[in-house]
Amino acid sequence: MKLVRIGARGAEKPAVLHRNRYYSLDTIANDIDAAFWETGGSGKVAAALEAGSLSEISLDGFRLGAPIARPSSVVCIGMNYAAHAAESGSAPPEVPIIFHKAANTVQGPNDPVAIPRGSTKTDWEVELGVVIGKRASYLESPEQSREHIGGLVVANDLSERDFQLAVSGGQWSKGKSCAGFCPTGPWLVTPDEVDYNNLRLRSWVNGEPRQDSTTADLIFDVDYVIWNLSQYLVLEPGDLICTGTPEGVALSGRFPYLKAGDVVEIEIEGLGRQRQEFTA
Amino acid sequence: MKLVRIGARGAEKPAVLHRNRYYSLDTIANDIDAAFWETGGSGKVAAALEAGSLSEISLDGFRLGAPIARPSSVVCIGMNYAAHAAESGSAPPEVPIIFHKAANTVQGPNDPVAIPRGSTKTDWEVELGVVIGKRASYLESPEQSREHIGGLVVANDLSERDFQLAVSGGQWSKGKSCAGFCPTGPWLVTPDEVDYNNLRLRSWVNGEPRQDSTTADLIFDVDYVIWNLSQYLVLEPGDLICTGTPEGVALSGRFPYLKAGDVVEIEIEGLGRQRQEFTA
Repeated sequence: MKLVRIGARGAEKPAVLHRNRYYSLDTIANDIDAAFWETGGSGKVAAALEAGSLSEISLDGFRLGAPIARPSSVVCIGMNYAAHAAESGSAPPEVPIIFHKAANTVQGPNDPVAIPRGSTKTDWEVELGVVIGKRASYLESPEQSREHIGGLVVANDLSERDFQLAVSGGQWSKGKSCAGFCPTGPWLVTPDEVDYNNLRLRSWVNGEPRQDSTTADLIFDVDYVIWNLSQYLVLEPGDLICTGTPEGVALSGRFPYLKAGDVVEIEIEGLGRQRQEFTA
Repeated sequence: MKLVRIGARGAEKPAVLHRNRYYSLDTIANDIDAAFWETGGSGKVAAALEAGSLSEISLDGFRLGAPIARPSSVVCIGMNYAAHAAESGSAPPEVPIIFHKAANTVQGPNDPVAIPRGSTKTDWEVELGVVIGKRASYLESPEQSREHIGGLVVANDLSERDFQLAVSGGQWSKGKSCAGFCPTGPWLVTPDEVDYNNLRLRSWVNGEPRQDSTTADLIFDVDYVIWNLSQYLVLEPGDLICTGTPEGVALSGRFPYLKAGDVVEIEIEGLGRQRQEFTA
């Protein structure tokens, strides 16, 4: 099942993409938010699709929002691919490294992104995003994690490297929380539809390839990350976890940073593709 | 004006404390949240107090919640008192250091706090909290900050030092986001009532004094912090900024860490006092 949110910024309505057609979820849910997951929204949508009771809608002329409402937390895992840790000048971590993005960075997958004022090092990061479907606290093992997943999503963990590293005192959030820095979507895909442990993820800048890896290369895989996080904080329904980015970002020194006019595209197998134009 | 929220966890109702009496805000606002600030809630409360149109209520038997709904972000400033930086083994920062606490850590000022599983280094941190009343992005100067403040509040930036420092890969959020780790309140005090640049802030453990300082000692004061943050992220109405803690925490080595049965009290001049019992 592929959930989407359609409409103007701040006024998105939930819908479902099924066999290349979009259907309104107006009769089932106000939004794809904590209440959606807490009231079994995903199961209701599946039942309504099965019953054929949903009304088809057109996406023509409508904006695609992030497929989730603003989360209570956007938790990110740092340096979670060995080759990216190496290109960043770090050893692979021995435990998951946690930082946050401000939750209001979440926006639609194709919305333009303004280069922050004073930025000379705005960078892309394609990441597998995990949306929590069921509250998780002190899970007993990674095997329990799967039932806490609401869906999988493409996330661009945009980063300003000077804000993150040069003027941060070592805490990364300053370079991760600028306006628009978490394009999310297009679809929120339920875990029955994809093998989240083996998804190809790629990025391009102005059509030239940058990142090309697979979630099979994650140092700490999705189930481990959810279990581990649940030992330190409470994951709420609707929370977004960005699981880390593979090698091929500008921080490596191999590619220029982003400037106004550049177009970033990122894609994860089975989860869809984003496209952002960067503006001044 | 002193705003409060009263009732069971997750079902708090807004009220105002005025000349030692509590008045319901049921006729004015559903909650003290983003919508409250965006619709001029503070001004409405002042007008209703002036008009004498609010109904008095009793606090007897009711729980005091945090005086704000769950924020979209809890942004913290690290090492913002020179003596605390020194006791933590750090030089004073040259720029504000930003990290986040998970927003679901915000809870009532007197709610018990469970020591996290596996914790041996749970620590207190009395902090002046600033609640944003008006969206702030790219403010032109610290002088503009004041009009973006909704109110001031006592916050306990509870911290697990091993999670924060030993098993974190250097990113502090892991030790800052455990369940219940942000007791907030009792009151949200509007900025006309206090001189937030000169407030005494203190903490006690089992009645013994720990921290005793003043916000006049902040390296980066409230107005500077809001202006500076607004250069890197968008502060939303209802967001909570924890401005940093002064010296006198367990991390200094001068005091033992918290254990089950300990009672922490913290107080800021004009903003009220909290009391938490720690449990296993």
